[in-house]
Amino acid sequence: MAAHSINITEKFKLFSDNWSPKVIAEMNDYQFKLAKVEGEFVWHSHDDTDETFIVIDGELTIEFRDRHVVLKKGEMVVVPRSVEHKPSAEDECQIMLIEPKGVVNTGDSGGELTAENDVWI
Amino acid sequence: MAAHSINITEKFKLFSDNWSPKVIAEMNDYQFKLAKVEGEFVWHSHDDTDETFIVIDGELTIEFRDRHVVLKKGEMVVVPRSVEHKPSAEDECQIMLIEPKGVVNTGDSGGELTAENDVWI
Repeated sequence: MAAHSINITEKFKLFSDNWSPKVIAEMNDYQFKLAKVEGEFVWHSHDDTDETFIVIDGELTIEFRDRHVVLKKGEMVVVPRSVEHKPSAEDECQIMLIEPKGVVNTGDSGGELTAENDVWI
Repeated sequence: MAAHSINITEKFKLFSDNWSPKVIAEMNDYQFKLAKVEGEFVWHSHDDTDETFIVIDGELTIEFRDRHVVLKKGEMVVVPRSVEHKPSAEDECQIMLIEPKGVVNTGDSGGELTAENDVWI
């Protein structure tokens, strides 16, 4: 696929469901995904990979078992593999996720918030 | 290393040299790098990996042999492996690069714009 420009803000206009990452780009075997999030997600971890969160708009909290980080627009965090975490957002927040293709959003936990994978917009 | 919040805008205040990527985070064997760019870079390619550019502020042009893309703030592109490209920016532009650890900025071309690798800020 030829390299083309991707406008992140425009891509966010293409969907409205929460906690359901949409793929916008692929780099080697990694994917860039956008998600809208609001409320609380589930505790989970990813045993095989780190996972990167970048806040595009709004404010995201990521709880760990011993502490939490609050990320505002323009802030990012890399959650190391195997580390349990629970994202949440009081108000709607727009995030970019970067992780290997095939990573399931709920990791080892599963449940009803598990989103379909590899959905492109 | 415990997951911690990284403020992209604040990181850009920590350096001023152009075309010299600084590492701000690592995810598996990939790195997130920030660079300030102005003027013309060199034609080069990376034979072993795709490379992602995200424009944080300003405007970046990436020339390919047959066309070019212009990226504004909030836009991104994935340059496929082996594809020759030449970034340039008329005015200072702030970009984030995402690529595997060890990728040299000038790829196969080398030359005086080759930056030291794995420099963290």
